Amino acid sequence: MSIYRETAIILDHGEGGAATNRLVQNLFFKHLGAPTVPEDATIVPGNDRLAITTDSFVVRPAEFPGGNIGKLAVCGTVNDLAVMGAKPVYLTAGYILEEGLSLEILERIVIAMAQTAREAGVSIIAGDTKVVGKGDADGIFINTTGVGFVPADRNLSSASVKPGDAIIVSGTIAEHGIAVMVARESFGISGDLQSDCQPLADLAEALIAVVPQVRCMRDPTRGGVATTLLEIATASNVGMILNEMAIPLRRPVRAACDLLGIDPLYVACEGRFLAIVPDELKEEALLALRRHPRGKNASIIGQAVVSPKGVHLETINGGERPLIALEGAQLPRIC
Amino acid sequence: MSIYRETAIILDHGEGGAATNRLVQNLFFKHLGAPTVPEDATIVPGNDRLAITTDSFVVRPAEFPGGNIGKLAVCGTVNDLAVMGAKPVYLTAGYILEEGLSLEILERIVIAMAQTAREAGVSIIAGDTKVVGKGDADGIFINTTGVGFVPADRNLSSASVKPGDAIIVSGTIAEHGIAVMVARESFGISGDLQSDCQPLADLAEALIAVVPQVRCMRDPTRGGVATTLLEIATASNVGMILNEMAIPLRRPVRAACDLLGIDPLYVACEGRFLAIVPDELKEEALLALRRHPRGKNASIIGQAVVSPKGVHLETINGGERPLIALEGAQLPRIC
Repeated sequence: MSIYRETAIILDHGEGGAATNRLVQNLFFKHLGAPTVPEDATIVPGNDRLAITTDSFVVRPAEFPGGNIGKLAVCGTVNDLAVMGAKPVYLTAGYILEEGLSLEILERIVIAMAQTAREAGVSIIAGDTKVVGKGDADGIFINTTGVGFVPADRNLSSASVKPGDAIIVSGTIAEHGIAVMVARESFGISGDLQSDCQPLADLAEALIAVVPQVRCMRDPTRGGVATTLLEIATASNVGMILNEMAIPLRRPVRAACDLLGIDPLYVACEGRFLAIVPDELKEEALLALRRHPRGKNASIIGQAVVSPKGVHLETINGGERPLIALEGAQLPRIC
Repeated sequence: MSIYRETAIILDHGEGGAATNRLVQNLFFKHLGAPTVPEDATIVPGNDRLAITTDSFVVRPAEFPGGNIGKLAVCGTVNDLAVMGAKPVYLTAGYILEEGLSLEILERIVIAMAQTAREAGVSIIAGDTKVVGKGDADGIFINTTGVGFVPADRNLSSASVKPGDAIIVSGTIAEHGIAVMVARESFGISGDLQSDCQPLADLAEALIAVVPQVRCMRDPTRGGVATTLLEIATASNVGMILNEMAIPLRRPVRAACDLLGIDPLYVACEGRFLAIVPDELKEEALLALRRHPRGKNASIIGQAVVSPKGVHLETINGGERPLIALEGAQLPRIC
């Protein structure tokens, strides 16, 4: 890249002097804009509540089918705000770069952040860059922190689920984790495996507009659908019964899971949410999601119950098995 | 540590399952409290402006005389808000941990964060933990993002400095960078070298209360006093003349700088700020700082001028030299 004297990250890029300035001006500001908050946008809406969330991203490889760590870092944080019922407004971005990281890769990552931020309607208003020596990090880590506002009349909570409520997933599951895993290790699997990574704020708003009574939404990232539902079930002191047949799963993802011996219910999504709604509103909710391009494979996958507690899966072959909390992960470093 | 099954970080601690939950409950929540925002505190003040800043910390070693990466991560971000004239309110904390990191060290770091946050009057309201494999990071990296509010009538800006204005530093300089450097490399230097790392929000408020006309404040972290003043001089299109004799520098720090061939004006402070005030208010400003325990060594170190542009140092022996922007750092990974 001719605009730099360098083609890869050097330690000086992280030290706040002329080299840092060059990197920030010629790469970060070029694509993300300088981090100045427009004066009128900083006035905080009257009675809305502030929502804040933070996430660090360490995915390996940094680029994978369907996205890269930059796109993921925007989606992950925007989606955490969206499922709280917040309208995402601002993001910050903190980069930890390893000496030797290619500036070409870094630029692709920053371009993806800029595009995804535009798509999600958020401004990246503050940034920070640190560089560590070769071997002291693994290419690139990104922290994004998101700030949004929850309209005064919204109160989504994982503790508000009632027996009888319907459990909806906004699309096909397990695609992000499997795409990253296969990109990292290959295993000789090819197939059409793409991350589902996408921002969900507009889809969440589309649902709330039609069904403001939605109890809660959650994005099933680390730990997947099973772990996320276990957390909600515990918080609300209910049980949940899932219908395996209703869980949307693309054929190549199912094949890869079978081959690797991985349960897709524990694999991370980065562009899906779970929504729990009162039973009598489930069809309206499903329609609201399916009408939206990001929710066209939405499906009602289960129901909250008084007992048994925990989360149980009614399997395709008529059996039933409990979904338990895993000690750790099947797939490390997928986000 | 008997409350864990482990004595060091394992990959599963970062994967969102039972091991993560154990770490979060038994270590992070134990010291920092669970990240629930008290409902009444989330209402955003009417006409105040939101201030947001982010910083990642990669200091090596993670523990150094006068602090550790946890204390530093709180101070660094609180101080970035304070010098904007914002009252710091919330922090988020994102941890990237290397497999094998001692839980004892991690606990000391988290305890320091909790203590420093209390001292600074901020709540840590969101957190995230990722774990990467051995060799994929260097012990621990922490991102902190801070949210604060700038009262409607405050407008501090690096671009508002006028010729004639006085330049004040809130205390002795270069202590953080030198303390970390010596802790890392030893060099056979002993001496009383302690980081100056401390939160400055109360000191900044004490100054503004007495001299609301303060033009701007900045904390001279990476790149030190020289780099920070160069940025302000450029933004305000003024020159600056510094008086070397007036710059407060502790004897052991001066000795270490001489020995290592390092210019203390380029060494990071983490518990000092530069304040630029109208000339006629400089004595009130100085007194306001010196009355406060965190500002008792404050000193007027120079003046803004029409020309020459840039920053010039009048040396102790009567000479003058320009302070120029460095390409990178004299001391990598000090924050």
